[in-house]
Amino acid sequence: MPKRIAAFGEVMMRLTVPGVELLSQSGTLHYTFSGTGVNVASALSRMGHEGMIVTRLPDNPMGDAAAAYLRKLGIGLSFAGRGGKYLGMYFLENGFGVRPSRVTYTNRLESSFNTAPEGTYDFADIADKVDAVHFCGIALAMNDGVRAHMKALARAVKQQGGTVIFDCNYRPSLWGEDGYDRARPHYEEMLRLSDVVLMNERDAMLTLGLHTEKEARREQLEELIPQAARTFGIRTVAGTHRFVNGDNSHSLQGFMFTSGQFAYSDLLTFAVYDRIGAGDAFASGIIHGELEVLPPETTVRYAAAAGMLAHTVAGDTPMSTAQDILKAMTASAGDVER
Amino acid sequence: MPKRIAAFGEVMMRLTVPGVELLSQSGTLHYTFSGTGVNVASALSRMGHEGMIVTRLPDNPMGDAAAAYLRKLGIGLSFAGRGGKYLGMYFLENGFGVRPSRVTYTNRLESSFNTAPEGTYDFADIADKVDAVHFCGIALAMNDGVRAHMKALARAVKQQGGTVIFDCNYRPSLWGEDGYDRARPHYEEMLRLSDVVLMNERDAMLTLGLHTEKEARREQLEELIPQAARTFGIRTVAGTHRFVNGDNSHSLQGFMFTSGQFAYSDLLTFAVYDRIGAGDAFASGIIHGELEVLPPETTVRYAAAAGMLAHTVAGDTPMSTAQDILKAMTASAGDVER
Amino acid sequence: MPKRIAAFGEVMMRLTVPGVELLSQSGTLHYTFSGTGVNVASALSRMGHEGMIVTRLPDNPMGDAAAAYLRKLGIGLSFAGRGGKYLGMYFLENGFGVRPSRVTYTNRLESSFNTAPEGTYDFADIADKVDAVHFCGIALAMNDGVRAHMKALARAVKQQGGTVIFDCNYRPSLWGEDGYDRARPHYEEMLRLSDVVLMNERDAMLTLGLHTEKEARREQLEELIPQAARTFGIRTVAGTHRFVNGDNSHSLQGFMFTSGQFAYSDLLTFAVYDRIGAGDAFASGIIHGELEVLPPETTVRYAAAAGMLAHTVAGDTPMSTAQDILKAMTASAGDVER
Amino acid sequence: MPKRIAAFGEVMMRLTVPGVELLSQSGTLHYTFSGTGVNVASALSRMGHEGMIVTRLPDNPMGDAAAAYLRKLGIGLSFAGRGGKYLGMYFLENGFGVRPSRVTYTNRLESSFNTAPEGTYDFADIADKVDAVHFCGIALAMNDGVRAHMKALARAVKQQGGTVIFDCNYRPSLWGEDGYDRARPHYEEMLRLSDVVLMNERDAMLTLGLHTEKEARREQLEELIPQAARTFGIRTVAGTHRFVNGDNSHSLQGFMFTSGQFAYSDLLTFAVYDRIGAGDAFASGIIHGELEVLPPETTVRYAAAAGMLAHTVAGDTPMSTAQDILKAMTASAGDVER
Amino acid sequence: MPKRIAAFGEVMMRLTVPGVELLSQSGTLHYTFSGTGVNVASALSRMGHEGMIVTRLPDNPMGDAAAAYLRKLGIGLSFAGRGGKYLGMYFLENGFGVRPSRVTYTNRLESSFNTAPEGTYDFADIADKVDAVHFCGIALAMNDGVRAHMKALARAVKQQGGTVIFDCNYRPSLWGEDGYDRARPHYEEMLRLSDVVLMNERDAMLTLGLHTEKEARREQLEELIPQAARTFGIRTVAGTHRFVNGDNSHSLQGFMFTSGQFAYSDLLTFAVYDRIGAGDAFASGIIHGELEVLPPETTVRYAAAAGMLAHTVAGDTPMSTAQDILKAMTASAGDVER
Amino acid sequence: MPKRIAAFGEVMMRLTVPGVELLSQSGTLHYTFSGTGVNVASALSRMGHEGMIVTRLPDNPMGDAAAAYLRKLGIGLSFAGRGGKYLGMYFLENGFGVRPSRVTYTNRLESSFNTAPEGTYDFADIADKVDAVHFCGIALAMNDGVRAHMKALARAVKQQGGTVIFDCNYRPSLWGEDGYDRARPHYEEMLRLSDVVLMNERDAMLTLGLHTEKEARREQLEELIPQAARTFGIRTVAGTHRFVNGDNSHSLQGFMFTSGQFAYSDLLTFAVYDRIGAGDAFASGIIHGELEVLPPETTVRYAAAAGMLAHTVAGDTPMSTAQDILKAMTASAGDVER
Repeated sequence: MPKRIAAFGEVMMRLTVPGVELLSQSGTLHYTFSGTGVNVASALSRMGHEGMIVTRLPDNPMGDAAAAYLRKLGIGLSFAGRGGKYLGMYFLENGFGVRPSRVTYTNRLESSFNTAPEGTYDFADIADKVDAVHFCGIALAMNDGVRAHMKALARAVKQQGGTVIFDCNYRPSLWGEDGYDRARPHYEEMLRLSDVVLMNERDAMLTLGLHTEKEARREQLEELIPQAARTFGIRTVAGTHRFVNGDNSHSLQGFMFTSGQFAYSDLLTFAVYDRIGAGDAFASGIIHGELEVLPPETTVRYAAAAGMLAHTVAGDTPMSTAQDILKAMTASAGDVER
Repeated sequence: MPKRIAAFGEVMMRLTVPGVELLSQSGTLHYTFSGTGVNVASALSRMGHEGMIVTRLPDNPMGDAAAAYLRKLGIGLSFAGRGGKYLGMYFLENGFGVRPSRVTYTNRLESSFNTAPEGTYDFADIADKVDAVHFCGIALAMNDGVRAHMKALARAVKQQGGTVIFDCNYRPSLWGEDGYDRARPHYEEMLRLSDVVLMNERDAMLTLGLHTEKEARREQLEELIPQAARTFGIRTVAGTHRFVNGDNSHSLQGFMFTSGQFAYSDLLTFAVYDRIGAGDAFASGIIHGELEVLPPETTVRYAAAAGMLAHTVAGDTPMSTAQDILKAMTASAGDVER
Repeated sequence: MPKRIAAFGEVMMRLTVPGVELLSQSGTLHYTFSGTGVNVASALSRMGHEGMIVTRLPDNPMGDAAAAYLRKLGIGLSFAGRGGKYLGMYFLENGFGVRPSRVTYTNRLESSFNTAPEGTYDFADIADKVDAVHFCGIALAMNDGVRAHMKALARAVKQQGGTVIFDCNYRPSLWGEDGYDRARPHYEEMLRLSDVVLMNERDAMLTLGLHTEKEARREQLEELIPQAARTFGIRTVAGTHRFVNGDNSHSLQGFMFTSGQFAYSDLLTFAVYDRIGAGDAFASGIIHGELEVLPPETTVRYAAAAGMLAHTVAGDTPMSTAQDILKAMTASAGDVER
Repeated sequence: MPKRIAAFGEVMMRLTVPGVELLSQSGTLHYTFSGTGVNVASALSRMGHEGMIVTRLPDNPMGDAAAAYLRKLGIGLSFAGRGGKYLGMYFLENGFGVRPSRVTYTNRLESSFNTAPEGTYDFADIADKVDAVHFCGIALAMNDGVRAHMKALARAVKQQGGTVIFDCNYRPSLWGEDGYDRARPHYEEMLRLSDVVLMNERDAMLTLGLHTEKEARREQLEELIPQAARTFGIRTVAGTHRFVNGDNSHSLQGFMFTSGQFAYSDLLTFAVYDRIGAGDAFASGIIHGELEVLPPETTVRYAAAAGMLAHTVAGDTPMSTAQDILKAMTASAGDVER
Repeated sequence: MPKRIAAFGEVMMRLTVPGVELLSQSGTLHYTFSGTGVNVASALSRMGHEGMIVTRLPDNPMGDAAAAYLRKLGIGLSFAGRGGKYLGMYFLENGFGVRPSRVTYTNRLESSFNTAPEGTYDFADIADKVDAVHFCGIALAMNDGVRAHMKALARAVKQQGGTVIFDCNYRPSLWGEDGYDRARPHYEEMLRLSDVVLMNERDAMLTLGLHTEKEARREQLEELIPQAARTFGIRTVAGTHRFVNGDNSHSLQGFMFTSGQFAYSDLLTFAVYDRIGAGDAFASGIIHGELEVLPPETTVRYAAAAGMLAHTVAGDTPMSTAQDILKAMTASAGDVER
Repeated sequence: MPKRIAAFGEVMMRLTVPGVELLSQSGTLHYTFSGTGVNVASALSRMGHEGMIVTRLPDNPMGDAAAAYLRKLGIGLSFAGRGGKYLGMYFLENGFGVRPSRVTYTNRLESSFNTAPEGTYDFADIADKVDAVHFCGIALAMNDGVRAHMKALARAVKQQGGTVIFDCNYRPSLWGEDGYDRARPHYEEMLRLSDVVLMNERDAMLTLGLHTEKEARREQLEELIPQAARTFGIRTVAGTHRFVNGDNSHSLQGFMFTSGQFAYSDLLTFAVYDRIGAGDAFASGIIHGELEVLPPETTVRYAAAAGMLAHTVAGDTPMSTAQDILKAMTASAGDVER
C-alpha cells in the first residue's frame, strides 16, 4: 500500500559542465535541482509512494524553476514554502578515469532554506499527514535554525506515531575542525528520535565515538551496529560498503540490521555513469522495505539494486521504478529492450 | 565487379534521446532514418555496389526528410515511391551498463509502407534491373499486404535469375502470441524462394520447428543448418553467435554453411557503441562475398569484421567502407590515423 | 478565490525543428507536450487556479515523459488515466517572414486518448470535484467515442452546477469534405450544454450556418453573436480578431459579449515569437474573468494581454503569471528588469 | 518536362559560427557545403529537373562528407570526380543590424577543383547527356586551368545544341587590382558562348566597359542590356536590383530581357534570414522558365519569388520547391500551415 | 599612443538561458564573465590600449574560469588577486518584444571582491603603473570596504597625476530605501576626485540633488551638467540619452561637456541584440577620446558608435575594434563583407 | 622559481566532430587551437612558469580567434606576430574501440607560420628574455624557411646560455618518401644545438640511423640513447614507451637518461579520453624537472603523471596544474572531490 513520506532538506541547483570539460574550458552548463531530500522523495514516488519535500524556496524565477523541476520528478510541494532570496548551488566538473570529478559550492548558508525563520513550517500539520519523515546529516551541519527545525519535526512525527528515518551522512568539509565533537550531541539527539537509520561502522566510530578492537570492516560492523541500535533504541540500521575498482566500475554491498539480525545483499559490481545520489537510492529502497514490511533479505537486496541502478542514470536523482529495480534484481546486464 | 542490389523494407524514423537520459528527463532528440533494408543497401553501397531500396514513403515533409537522408547514405531511390501519410517511428533511450536500452514504437501499421496497396511496386521492372534482392523477417511480420509484396518480388527476381536473400530475423513482439505457428508457413515460403539465408540454430528450432537432441549451440547449429538448407533448397546459410560480456563489450563469431561445408570467423571481442544494425552489417558482408564469389572463409571473416565495426558507429546504419573492413580484418585496435 | 478547472483534451507530443531549418535539413528536434487542454490548464494554474487535465496517456516511456512534462507545468493529473499505446505527435518546422511554418501530424487517431473506451473516465467524480470544465472543437472532430465522452462530461458538470466552457476552434483539415454539415449537430449539442463559448462571427456563419447581410467583420460580429447566444442559451461569448502584419508582427483585438453587451479590448500590436497556443491563453483569460466575476471590460483586456504575451513565449503553452499579465496591461514595451 | 542541367563549379565547405557570435567568442561551427553550382543544381532539382554538378572533390573524409551532403540535396554526382587533397572553405560570422556579416576564406587555390588537371572532365560525355550547362563568374576568376575547363565545356555543350547559361557574378576581391581589365577578355569569350546570361547594368559598365550617359539605374539598364545582348548574341539577359532597407528587410526586383523586350517582376520586400545564395535561386528560376519556355512575365516573377524565398532559408542553398514558389507568387505573408 | 588603464570592479558570472526560454523551461545555461570594469577594460583593449582590471577572484575552479575568460578578452590580470570563496552571479532570461528580460542575482555581498580586506590591493603600485583608472557607481553601492578601496585608489592615482574616471551608474535596487540620501556623500567624494565623469541630468537631479525649473531633457542637461562640473571640478562630463522604440530598435544620442562647451553625436537608431554593457562601450569611447586628446566632436561620435555596436554583439562585453567603430561612424547598415 | 620558456611552433585550428560521428554524418564541429608549441607553453604555464609562443598568426578573424584562445590558455603572445592569411587546420573524427580516430589536414604549407619570411622574428630579443626554448620535429618537416628560423633561434638561445629543448617527433607522412634520409641532417643539426631531447630508441634507429643487435625495446633503448647523447652532446634524453591495451586503456612508462644514468617511472595504466597532446604533457614535465633541477627519479615520475592526466582531458592541450599532477603521483583512481 502506498505511503506518504516527507523528506526534510535543502533543494540545490546543480550546474554541470557538459562532457568532461573543465569550467575554464566550456561555456555551457546543464542545470537540475537536487538534494538528499529531493532524491529520496523522487525515488519513493517512483516506487509507488507519495514523496513530498519539506523545504523553503526563494520567491523568484530560481524558485519557480526549482518548483517546476520537483513537480516534474513527481514530488509533492504542499509542504514547500516560498521566501528568502537565494538557492544553494554547486558546480560539477565531471572527471574521467584517474582524474576525479570536482564540486564547487556557492554560499549556501544564505539560501532560503538555511535562513528559514522559526514558524516557517507547520510541523503538526506535516506530522498529521505523513506516514514517515526522512532527515539527513547534511542538513544537520548547516546551523542552529535548521537543526531546530529538524528536531521539532522529528519529535512531531514520532509523537503522531510516524516513522522517523535518519541518514547520518557526515560530511567533514561542512563541520570543519573538531567537527566530530561538535556534531556528536546533535547526531545523538537525532538517533534517539529515529526508527530507521542509515549508517555504517565508520559513522559509529567517528561520529558516535564507539570503539572496537576489530580490524576487518565486517567485524567492526557486526560489533558496533548492534551496539548503536541498542544505545539509541533504533529499530533498523542499514548501509553499504562501496569499493572503487580500477576500471571505472564500482562494487557495492548493502547490509541491514533489524530484530537483532544482519541481512546482506550480494556484492554487486557495475559500470558507473553518475554516482552522486546513489546512496539516497539505497536509503529509499530500505525505507520502501520498512514501510511495506518486507523481509529484511528482500529489502536489502532491493535497496542494493536501487543503489546500483542509480549509478547508471544521468543526474543526482534516482529515476528507476519499482519494476526496473525488480528486473535488475534478477537479470544480468541487458541488451536492447524492444 | 559492382552489383545492383535492391533491399525491400520499411524506412523508419529513429528518434534517439541524446546521451543516456530518459525520455522523461530530456527535451531533445536526434533523428535519423533506418530499417533493415536501409542498413543493407547503405552497407553494400559502401562496399562498392549499387544499393537501392524498395519502399514507400509519405508525400510530405517527413517523406522528404527520409528521402534526403537515404540519398545522403548513397541509397538509390528509383524504386522508392511516394504515397500514404505516415512514417513508422521509434524512440530509443540509451541504456548504460546494467540498465538496458529501451525502444518504444509508434503505430507503424498505418505507415505508408505497411498500407501500400497492390500495384504499388513494379516487380518485373525491379527484377529486370537488379542482381539480387534482400528481404527481412521483420517485414514478414507486418500484414498480408506486405507479405504479398515480398513473395511477389522474390518470385519475380528468382524467375529472372537474380539472387534472393532472406534474413529470418524473427521478432517475438511483432508476431505476438502463437507467433511461431502463425509465422512458420510464411517463413517456409520465403525460404523456398531464397538462395542465401541469414539464420541460426534458434531460428531453425523455433521458427521452423526442427528438432535436435544436441545441447551445445555449436552442435545444434551443425546438425540443424544443413538440414534446413537441404529441406528448402538454400545455397548458403549464414549467421552469428553473439555474447554480451560483463564489461560493456560483446563477442561475436560468424558462421557460413555453403556447398556442404561450414566456415567460421574468429571469435571477435570489442567495445560496443551502438549495437542496432550490426546484424545487417554482417548480412551485407555475406551478400558481398556471395555476389563477388569469394571463398567462404574470406566471406565469413569479412562479414564478421563488418558486423564488429558496425558496433562502433553512431546510428543504426553501417558506415564502414570495404577498405575499413579489410583493415579491421588484419589490424589490432587502432590508435589515431594521421 | 482560486477555482478548480478541468480541461478535457488530447495531449500531443510537439517535435520542433530548432531554428528555422526544415526537417530535411536538420537532425535534431526539441520536444514538448501540448494540446488545447494542456494550454488552458497550464495558463489557469499560472493565474492562481488549480488546472487539471482529463485525458488518457499511454502506459510506456512516452506516457511517462508526457506526465512528467505536465506536472512540470503545474497541471493536476488525478483525472489523467493510463492505457493504450500511442501518443499523438506533430512536427513543427518554423517559417521565417514570407515562408510559413509547417505542421505535419502523425496518426493521432490511434492514440491512447482517441481510443479510450467507454468507462475510461469517472464523469460523476470529476463533476463533483471541479468548478468548471473546458472543451475544444478539436477533440470534437476526432471520433464518436471522444464525442460521447465530451457530451457525457459536459452534462455531468452542468448537472452539478459547474460552468461548462467550449472553444469552437473548427479545424477544416480534421473534418474533411462536407465538414461543416457533419460538424454542425455536434457543435449545436455542445453549445446547448455550455455557459461560456469561444467563437467569432466566422464560426457563427460557417459552423452554425447563421446568415447576415453585413459585410464588415465588426458588424457581422455584433449581429450574429447575440443571435447565437440567444439560440443556444449561452451566458458569455468571447473571441478575437487577429491581423497578420507585414513586419513579423500581429495585431489582436478581443471581444466579449455577456448580459446583452459587447466589451472590447484595445487593438494590441506586438512582435511574434511562437503563435501556437495564443488562442488558448486568451480563452484562459476569459475563463479567469468569468470565474472571478470580474467586470467584462477588465476580463476582455486581461484576456487580450494574456493572448499577446503567449506570442512572446517559446512553445505552445502560456507561461505568464497573473502578475505578468497585469503588468503587460499597463506597461509599454519593456527594457531589462533588474 | 524535366530537363537535365549540369552546373560547373567549386564545392566549398561553409563553416558558420552559430547565432551572432564572433569566431573569437564561440567554440562551435555548423558546416554545410555550397557554391554557386551547388545552389543552382539543388534549386533546379527542387523545381523538378535533374540537377548535376561538374566538379572535383578530394578523395578523403572531407570529399566523402561533401558528396554525402550533395546527394542529400538531390544533386547528381555522375560528373563529379575525385582527386586532389583539399576543399575550399570559408568561415561565416553572422552580423546583426548595423554590424555586417564577415566572410573569411581559406586558401581555395589549392583545392581539388582549382588544381584539376587537363583531362579531368569528359566534356563530350557531359555535353551528350545534358540539356543545359551553368557557369559562374566566380570560377572564371580562379586560374587558367579552370578557365580552360569552362570554355571547353561551354563549347562542347553549344556544339551539341544544349543551352549555355552564364552568371557574370564579378567579385572584385578575387580579381584584384586592374581586375576588370584582366577579366574582360574572359568574360567576353564566355558571353559569346552563352544563350542565357545573368548580369545587370553595372556588369555591363564595369566588366564589359560599356558606356552610358544615363544616370538612373533603370535607364542605364534599358540602354545597356540590349546593347550587350546584341554584341555577344545572347538570347536572354536577366538580373535583379536589390535594396537593403533600414529594418533588416531587403527589396528585390527582377528583370528579364528577351526577344527585344523587357519584363519586370514586382518590387518584393521581405525580411531576410540568410542572404547568401539568393542570387543563385533567382538564376535558377530564370533557367527553369527558359527551359520550360514560359512567358517572360511568368519567368521573371517566378525567379523573383524563388530569390525572395531563398532569403528565408537557413544556409546558402535554396530549398524551395516549385510548389512553394508558386504559392509565394500569389500569397501574402503566411501564418502556420496545418 | 596606447595608454594603460585599470578598471576597478567586481567580476560576475553571467548565466544566460539560451534563446527566449524561461529558467523554468530550459535545462541549459551559457556562462560568461562580465562587470562594468571587465567591459571597460575589454573595450579599451580592442581600441588599442592596455586594459587591466583591479579585482579579487576566488582561488577555486570558478576563479580559474573567470581568469581564463578575462585573459581571452585581452584584459591584463596583474592587479587581480586571488582570495575568498565566491563569485557574484546573475541569471539572465531574455525577453521578447513586449515581454521584458529578467535578471536574478545570487548573493554577491559574500563574493571575493566584496569581502576583500584592507591591504588586498597595492594602490601605490597600481597608481605607479597606469595612465588612468575607471570606477563605477555599482561598486560604490556595495559596502564600506569596497568604498574605502575605491577612494584610496582614486586618491593614489590622482596624486600620481593619472586620470580618474567615474561612471555614476546609480542602481536604485542596490541602494534601497532612502538610497539617494545615503549615496550622495559617497558620490560627491568620488566626483571631487574625478577628471572625467559619466552622468546625465537625472544623475544631477536625483543623486546630487541639483534643481532646475526646466522641463525638456536637453534644457535640463545644459543647465545642470555645467553646474555639476563647476561644483566638483570635473574636466569632462559625458553621457547618453536613450529611447526604446516600438519595433525592437533603440535610439541613442551621446553628449559631452568639456572646456565649457557641449558636443553632441547624431541620434543613432539601430536594432538591438543584447543591450547589457552598451553604456560601458560608450564610456570606453569617451575615455579613448580623452586619453588620445581627440576633438570633443570626434570623441562623442566615436563613443556613440561604440555604444551602438555594443548592442549588436552577443554578451555584455563590447567586442568591436577601433577599426569597426570608425567604419560604423561612416557606413550605413552593412551587407555581407567578403 | 618560475622560469620563462618560449615554444616555437605552428598554431593550428583543430575542428573536432562531436561524439563519435563521422564528418559525413554530422553537421557540427567544435574548434580549438593547438600545436606542440601551444601544448608545451600551456602545460608549463599551469606548472607555474611563464609559457610563451613564438609563432605567426594571420591578421584576420581566424588569427583573432587563435590569439584569444591562446590568451585563455595563459600563453604569452609577445613573440607572436601577425601576418600572412591562413591558419593550418585539421579535422578530427573520433574513433571508438577498434575503429581508429581519423585526422584530415588542410593545406598547412600556405599558413602564416609556414610562409613567415626572414626577419619575422627577433631572435636576439627572444633569446634575451627567456630561460629556455622548445622545438619540435613537426616544424622541422615543414620547409627550408621554417628550418632556418628554428636553427637561428636555437643558436641565439644557446649563445645566451639558455636551455634548448628538442622533441624529435618524426612524422612519416610529413617527410614523405626517403623521409628519414632527407630529415637526418636537419635532426643532427638540431640535436647538436640541444640540451634536452625527447626521443626513444626508434628515433635513434630510424631518424639517426643508429644500429643495434638487441631485440627487446628496453635493451635497444639502453644501448642507443647513451650513444646518441654522447654523439650530439645532449645533457638529458627522455621519452616514453606506450602500449595500447584492448579495453580502451593505454599503458605508459617514462624514461630519462641524464648524467649517464637511466631513471624510469612506474608503468601507468589508465582509461583514455583524448590522447592527442599527451606526449607534449610528458615533455613539459621533463622540462619542468630540468629547469627546477629536480632529481631525475622525481622528474620522470612527474612527467609520466602529467602525460597520464593529459589523456583524461578534452582537447589537445594539457590542463592539469602542478598540484593536480602531484596528487596523481600519489593517489589511486579518484572519486568525487567535494
